[in-house]
Amino acid sequence: MRWRSLFWEAGALHLLDQTQLPASPTVLRLREWTEVVEAIRTLRVRGAPALGAAGAYALALAARQFLADPATFWVNLREAAAVIRAARPTAVNLSWATDRALQAAVGVQDPEEASQRVLEEAHRIAEEDERTCRLLAEVGARELRDGERVLTLCNTGALATVGIGTALGILRAAWEAGKRLHVYACETRPLLQGARLTAWELSQLGIPFHLVVDAAAGWLMAQGLVDRVLVGADRVAANGDVANKIGTYTLAVLARRHEVPFWVACPLSTVDLQTPSGSAIRVEERSPEEVTHVAGVRVAPEGTPALNYAFDMTPAELVDALVTEAGVVRPPFGPALRALKEGTRV
Amino acid sequence: MRWRSLFWEAGALHLLDQTQLPASPTVLRLREWTEVVEAIRTLRVRGAPALGAAGAYALALAARQFLADPATFWVNLREAAAVIRAARPTAVNLSWATDRALQAAVGVQDPEEASQRVLEEAHRIAEEDERTCRLLAEVGARELRDGERVLTLCNTGALATVGIGTALGILRAAWEAGKRLHVYACETRPLLQGARLTAWELSQLGIPFHLVVDAAAGWLMAQGLVDRVLVGADRVAANGDVANKIGTYTLAVLARRHEVPFWVACPLSTVDLQTPSGSAIRVEERSPEEVTHVAGVRVAPEGTPALNYAFDMTPAELVDALVTEAGVVRPPFGPALRALKEGTRV
Repeated sequence: MRWRSLFWEAGALHLLDQTQLPASPTVLRLREWTEVVEAIRTLRVRGAPALGAAGAYALALAARQFLADPATFWVNLREAAAVIRAARPTAVNLSWATDRALQAAVGVQDPEEASQRVLEEAHRIAEEDERTCRLLAEVGARELRDGERVLTLCNTGALATVGIGTALGILRAAWEAGKRLHVYACETRPLLQGARLTAWELSQLGIPFHLVVDAAAGWLMAQGLVDRVLVGADRVAANGDVANKIGTYTLAVLARRHEVPFWVACPLSTVDLQTPSGSAIRVEERSPEEVTHVAGVRVAPEGTPALNYAFDMTPAELVDALVTEAGVVRPPFGPALRALKEGTRV
Repeated sequence: MRWRSLFWEAGALHLLDQTQLPASPTVLRLREWTEVVEAIRTLRVRGAPALGAAGAYALALAARQFLADPATFWVNLREAAAVIRAARPTAVNLSWATDRALQAAVGVQDPEEASQRVLEEAHRIAEEDERTCRLLAEVGARELRDGERVLTLCNTGALATVGIGTALGILRAAWEAGKRLHVYACETRPLLQGARLTAWELSQLGIPFHLVVDAAAGWLMAQGLVDRVLVGADRVAANGDVANKIGTYTLAVLARRHEVPFWVACPLSTVDLQTPSGSAIRVEERSPEEVTHVAGVRVAPEGTPALNYAFDMTPAELVDALVTEAGVVRPPFGPALRALKEGTRV
């Protein structure tokens, strides 16, 4: 796999445009911070950890642009940070990383120097994600048994992060360590990240898999074909409630009925101690057109009203384990998450 | 609603081509029995009751064609019946209606006369479906409360039957009786019968609804937005196990967790006393291309392996009620279904 979801080069953020996958892999070269915001909104870049790095780089681009007028630099930079944070509301990484990049510059008098600090912090966030993914993957891979059949949702691989991914990173690490696996990849309507992105990554990795429609998950489990559900997270609350792609909650309910372990891969950057429980997380509603159209083709009649929750909330009681870069956390999650977060610099 | 899913006119079976909905409503005029078989296989006509009538009419067309050679008439007719029955394996109505049309001719010496009998029986099957739908809809509509929010899957309306439909027929009858309703229509991947067909019917009926992706069902229930799940059935076993569109089982598991009533509309023609339980029903696997493509557009990378179960099995223990034209049946289903089936000529 030679591609990267995003990287910084020659003063520009380079993004692999995920809306063009798998048909036309295209790398976007973004020099304007507003272009990055637009890319975030339109899911050209997606996945909580990748969004974090993209947000920090967007702020770095903004800072450089605002140097032209030092008098308004700070006002503009804070406003840009607010706009970037708001581009996607559910994933905590976006606001966390943007704030962190902003804080790196606060107190610095010289805008030029402040701008440099923002960029350096963005680089650190990207590098940390690479390390975090690798650690998390190794922690999770140790837990998988040889021959496991794992059901997953959405895309949690190298496309969703700067590094090798979270849930898919675990599968990759287990596979590369010689464990046999079979993956059931849910296609993940409405935007088909499973069909477009996870299938693409699994094919390249050579991991055996089947693509299935989301509604097939129950029947797969009923037939005993699933040994584990392994998904990512957009935000994990302090009590272990998990906000993730719409359909995650359904998988958790099915897994519990079938006594299939339900595991969530979540770098500690995804854990938000400021959010006591899932009920405090705003679930993003996206455009109805994502439901009435597929791959740009209208499938429902003109005028069809659609409801498009992008995420759902899985209560901690349905989660059997959270895999972090610092270890596997089991219920009760609250105290363990707090200890791990406070034991790291994240 | 001026259209009909299928009707016989001027010696031909007319089918509203459901693969062309909603974009291009097209009526096919089929004069060859093999054209009908092809239309069944490719889902130009679908829905268990509509498949029954289509199968019987296919046999009527076959009988007329085989008149040219009276010596081989019966051999050909029996062979055609076997081919028609096998065009879709899961819905019981197809084989039931085809057999019934064949039996209507058995014992008749004159092929011309036998051919006429097959056509008359096909007409009877179609007329019975119209009556059955109306009765079933009235039985079900009485049970719905004013203001209910009902989640449904696939298409179970006038497109799925000769009459006004089964589950959707109930909603229509309740609506026309003045009850307020809100419907959540699951889009029903892979073939999007919810988005293409149910949305089309609900729009025409003026019943308020939202289209949702299948994976959203759990989150809708978790938010208390669903008062009842109401689906159709492709085959109901003697013990009340329900074979229906992939995703039905998932909805049943979710409904049970949320204490939402899970109701199945099933004309008695869909009840198969010869099948003791769901484990005896063959679940049709369809082409992987239905998963890797949407509306004719490839969404997954070339070479992506996909698993495409068209149906799943919901155990009777998750079903709260079966709505038939002869009344609502509650658990235990076995004795009640047997009594109703034996009390009818079906």
